[in-house]
Amino acid sequence: MANLDVPRGQSLTLIDFRPIGYVIGLLVAVLGLTMLVPLAMDIADGNGHWPVFFESFLITFTVGSLTSLACQNGAREGLTLQQTFILTTGLWAMLPLFGALPFIMGATQADFTDAYFEAMSGMTTTGSTVFSGLQDLPRGLNLWRGILQWLGGIGIIVVAMVFLPELRVGGMQMFRSEAFETMGKILPKASAIAGQISVIYVGLTVACMLTYLILGMDPYNATVHALTTMSTGGFSTSDASFGVFQGPMEYAASFYMIAAALPFVRYVQMLNGNRIALFRDTQVHGFIGTIAVLVVVSAIVLLHIFPHHWEQAVRESLFNIVSIMSGTGYASVDYMQWGAFLITMFFFIGLIGGCAGSTACSVKIFRYQILLISIKAQIKRIHSPHGVFSLRYDGNKLDEDVLASVMSFFVFFTVSVGVFSVALALTGLDFITSLSGAATALANIGPGLGDIIGPAGNFGPLNDTAKWVLIIGMLCGRLELMVVYAMLTVRFWRG
Amino acid sequence: MANLDVPRGQSLTLIDFRPIGYVIGLLVAVLGLTMLVPLAMDIADGNGHWPVFFESFLITFTVGSLTSLACQNGAREGLTLQQTFILTTGLWAMLPLFGALPFIMGATQADFTDAYFEAMSGMTTTGSTVFSGLQDLPRGLNLWRGILQWLGGIGIIVVAMVFLPELRVGGMQMFRSEAFETMGKILPKASAIAGQISVIYVGLTVACMLTYLILGMDPYNATVHALTTMSTGGFSTSDASFGVFQGPMEYAASFYMIAAALPFVRYVQMLNGNRIALFRDTQVHGFIGTIAVLVVVSAIVLLHIFPHHWEQAVRESLFNIVSIMSGTGYASVDYMQWGAFLITMFFFIGLIGGCAGSTACSVKIFRYQILLISIKAQIKRIHSPHGVFSLRYDGNKLDEDVLASVMSFFVFFTVSVGVFSVALALTGLDFITSLSGAATALANIGPGLGDIIGPAGNFGPLNDTAKWVLIIGMLCGRLELMVVYAMLTVRFWRG
Ligand SMILES: [K+]
Ligand SMILES: [K+]
Repeated sequence: MANLDVPRGQSLTLIDFRPIGYVIGLLVAVLGLTMLVPLAMDIADGNGHWPVFFESFLITFTVGSLTSLACQNGAREGLTLQQTFILTTGLWAMLPLFGALPFIMGATQADFTDAYFEAMSGMTTTGSTVFSGLQDLPRGLNLWRGILQWLGGIGIIVVAMVFLPELRVGGMQMFRSEAFETMGKILPKASAIAGQISVIYVGLTVACMLTYLILGMDPYNATVHALTTMSTGGFSTSDASFGVFQGPMEYAASFYMIAAALPFVRYVQMLNGNRIALFRDTQVHGFIGTIAVLVVVSAIVLLHIFPHHWEQAVRESLFNIVSIMSGTGYASVDYMQWGAFLITMFFFIGLIGGCAGSTACSVKIFRYQILLISIKAQIKRIHSPHGVFSLRYDGNKLDEDVLASVMSFFVFFTVSVGVFSVALALTGLDFITSLSGAATALANIGPGLGDIIGPAGNFGPLNDTAKWVLIIGMLCGRLELMVVYAMLTVRFWRG
Repeated sequence: MANLDVPRGQSLTLIDFRPIGYVIGLLVAVLGLTMLVPLAMDIADGNGHWPVFFESFLITFTVGSLTSLACQNGAREGLTLQQTFILTTGLWAMLPLFGALPFIMGATQADFTDAYFEAMSGMTTTGSTVFSGLQDLPRGLNLWRGILQWLGGIGIIVVAMVFLPELRVGGMQMFRSEAFETMGKILPKASAIAGQISVIYVGLTVACMLTYLILGMDPYNATVHALTTMSTGGFSTSDASFGVFQGPMEYAASFYMIAAALPFVRYVQMLNGNRIALFRDTQVHGFIGTIAVLVVVSAIVLLHIFPHHWEQAVRESLFNIVSIMSGTGYASVDYMQWGAFLITMFFFIGLIGGCAGSTACSVKIFRYQILLISIKAQIKRIHSPHGVFSLRYDGNKLDEDVLASVMSFFVFFTVSVGVFSVALALTGLDFITSLSGAATALANIGPGLGDIIGPAGNFGPLNDTAKWVLIIGMLCGRLELMVVYAMLTVRFWRG
């Protein structure tokens, strides 16, 4: 981090982009390789669509490999903070560019905006779709949508566990010392964590797929839905989303969506012998507890509105609340028909989110817990104005730095929802579509509210400008806002 | 503050309610006396409605005087923190109870809920009304509505300058040392400040009234509107609100609404010889600057939507933006017709607010400025992780305590909007009415969005439960949330 010592007032520091290019190139090449999976499926289906993936693979793999090779002489194990910021944002901006190729060349015949929107929505695990008639697409293309989300999901876990704590944004520095503190340079650390996480992520995905199979999904649907469940992505294979899989499968999906929204570091610890790591985590208690309360409330209200059996009320409440809170965004029913109370509640539930270090997004449980601790301390202070209170979270001391970051994140999130809403309204969208569109993009949930982008609609009818605003929103939201915003300041580039 | 030393774990401390009852009783009696003003007007009008105010006066003055007398032996100059909290909330809960009497007994024939809603909306300077056909009410009743807001306005300035800094809530402690630090015990301090503020408040109100008179309003309208302009209350004398006074009067109203939303401590300093106090205040710069930018944006958009003359576009933009940002809530046009962009923008403008220590409400400019300062410091820290940065606002050092309070306020405000929205939706209101109703109540603005409570509607059609939710919202919002919320904790009562 030698650049950091350059005195202020000097001209822009020359940033070495080669280590960044090296990593991005490498991952683009890997993305290219994964295109061989839907290629194989379209060949097996004999639907004649496989050349789409072959061409996409050729372009992606070639560009990725060449970029990586060209930058290889600059590759190193450590990165400056500046480089880490640029790498993180660069990854999520560049990968969807290549992920979009099959949508442009394939059966969807999408223009660049739609294709990039869909790929960004995939890799950020948002799950908003611009396409309708999903059930009529070649199966390879739906599989590709699932793969994009699955890759985005594991990517974000690694970023949340390695990069964000280093960048000290949004209170994520609190998770720095956990489990991996002595691993050294950032890139080897990232690879090591990615390795351990992969075992768990793949394991859970396979388990989820098998569960879906046993409960009666065909292998194709079981695979795509396992990919989009474990990434809390929420892409589905038909316009009816999860609505075609009612009953026991909703319970199964709820279970795995919850599993995907829990802190993955705890799974790693369990794998390493600490059997109760997950069950002693404060975030986990908060997350499960909140779901339990909300499901009870929602089920009671549903029983008042509809002549449902209680089991159906509980099941639909559980599934939809878990889906929104984990940020998955599957819909099993059109909850726009559930009445204003549940719609309003769902809007705000989306702003809660899952646990840090999972594939879930939004404000996240731990931030609310920390805010609550801080507020309790302030009430204490009313009685003892000069008392000194040491705040603790999950057994660790909460320092001022974390507190300030958590609060700023919350402010940033709220103000961003405001700014993105106004921007969307400026493109001509109505109030509900603008507001819920901004929220669903920034929280990476998927569906919005209203007739256009609600659970029964899709994002296709929006104008291109609105789609670009949402693309930026999804990117900012996925990278905890601060990662992108910090790069917008002059100071950042001054070094 | 001797009670504070009682060890925790003991049973409830006995709180001495007599000093609280003494002050509340005194102010209830004063409220009773002010009822003689509309009484005089209804006598002069010869409309036969004066007995309403006479009976209200008798009840209010008697109850107030007796309460005050009964508690006189407990009166003292100092209050414990507990007592200050209870007094502040108690005042705003009790005074509207008596302020409501003329609505119950008078021409409006309101039930208790409606009458208390209207009085609370008045004394919190919110300005949401449950009545329609305002132009057909006896003039004394509309004058009474104006007086309620005017009293609420000066009341809140005193609370913001004396009580809130002592209670250390919402970052208001920052304003503690300004101007009045050496004045001693809280109640004499409050009286002294009220005295100085009254001179300015009365002076500005008279100036406003004269301006309206000169520009062509009749004395009755000029008086009522001056009362509701300077309190940023926004009650009007007809359902068309300020729509009947177009042209130069909109500029005049904008000028005085801005004047009412500036920090009154600066006026006091100017009166005491510091001529430039107002113009060097960081909050004032932020407030005026924000208005200027928003007016330009809004005028440009209006010129694109309507075939307006540019002067009309600027005037309507200025008036409506100042009206929303200062929290006055007059409407000169039905801006629900202005298109989604401006509607969405107006919703979020309402969440900005005026300056601290004025009659304006909502989040307030200084909190956004402090958040911005904090966020800049965090970006600095990205480059120098171990640097120590001393944050300054308006020339003073910002300590961690203020920062934490400001951030908590913001979080509280946002979460409150969520909780109140869900509560309103639970009573059966639609999404827009619930969300904008919660926001307009908590920010004490007045009108909401949508067909029911938008600028062209009123709050009369809402169900009683929703009205009570809004009543609580107005009260919490006016008292900077924390004052009321702190009282909801067990710890508060434990002493
Ligand atoms: K999602
Ligand atoms: K108002």
